[in-house]
Amino acid sequence: MPHIALPPGLPGIRGAMAFRPETARPLNALVEILLTGPSTLSKGERELIATYVSSRNCTQYCHNIHGAIAAAHLGGNEALVKQVKTDFTQAEISPKLKALLTIAGKVQQDGKLVTTADVEAARKEGATDLEIHDTVLIAAAFCMYNRYVDGLATTLPADESFYRERGPVVARNGYVAASEEYLAAHRR
Amino acid sequence: MPHIALPPGLPGIRGAMAFRPETARPLNALVEILLTGPSTLSKGERELIATYVSSRNCTQYCHNIHGAIAAAHLGGNEALVKQVKTDFTQAEISPKLKALLTIAGKVQQDGKLVTTADVEAARKEGATDLEIHDTVLIAAAFCMYNRYVDGLATTLPADESFYRERGPVVARNGYVAASEEYLAAHRR
Repeated sequence: MPHIALPPGLPGIRGAMAFRPETARPLNALVEILLTGPSTLSKGERELIATYVSSRNCTQYCHNIHGAIAAAHLGGNEALVKQVKTDFTQAEISPKLKALLTIAGKVQQDGKLVTTADVEAARKEGATDLEIHDTVLIAAAFCMYNRYVDGLATTLPADESFYRERGPVVARNGYVAASEEYLAAHRR
Repeated sequence: MPHIALPPGLPGIRGAMAFRPETARPLNALVEILLTGPSTLSKGERELIATYVSSRNCTQYCHNIHGAIAAAHLGGNEALVKQVKTDFTQAEISPKLKALLTIAGKVQQDGKLVTTADVEAARKEGATDLEIHDTVLIAAAFCMYNRYVDGLATTLPADESFYRERGPVVARNGYVAASEEYLAAHRR
């Protein structure tokens, strides 16, 4: 049961966002730019970074939903998403994404752990400054979303199929559009 | 030296925001609502939560600048800000704020550590659901801002007086307005 009276029937961050639409707006705008905006990283790659960080934070709702969105962007490749969560060094992803995931994993723990060598390794694999910036900010942002979801003890979906159904919708429509339905229903 | 080519002369999060104005917008909008928007928590109290979390994350730029903004809201009481960083249980703040800082400290570590007892303790001191929500989100958001600032290895101000000068400006004008100057100068 959530720690505060969140609107019922909305699992994870959705209940928290419906409770406080004023903060939901910038929270959605940020994730929309980072994960779906113009970028030389594919949407699938960016969702894998978000999924990996959420998985390391053990935030079940976030790593399941972003894993489902990642899979939707990656032609339904759920095995790849699982491999990234378990051990990305063995996953069939580019060396550049592996170097960026190393940086993301350090940011998840503490930003100060990122070294010049980590950044040089990513650059050697072709990462640009903007890609490195966005990787750091995606990882940092999911340390926020994860703590927001966990700190309020938000509920999990009653049925695991929620993620598989919702993933492709968000992948197709983006975060702002996909949130409008429930935010509109709870507008204050 | 920062890990990527950030605009020079802008310490902490300011350089990162000037580098990527697209993400600076929602980042500033979020902190503006949380720390300066309508609330039954005073601006000083909310800045103390932000300062405390940044201090626990050992993010020097953030705990110094938010400490200075907090002090500006609290009649220049720098000793109180220092006491909150060192041991808030002994600080001259309300029992409600102490209960909220306990929750914030747990969110800083891991949102799942917040217990029903923590939330009940805050409620007993008069905390509302909205105050508890905002405390969790402020703490979560500063886990993002702190990692963003640290993960890019942003620079510190050359002179410590930066914080004392800047604190009252942000306290007076808010985050969005205070950022406009350097964002405008680096608009892409």
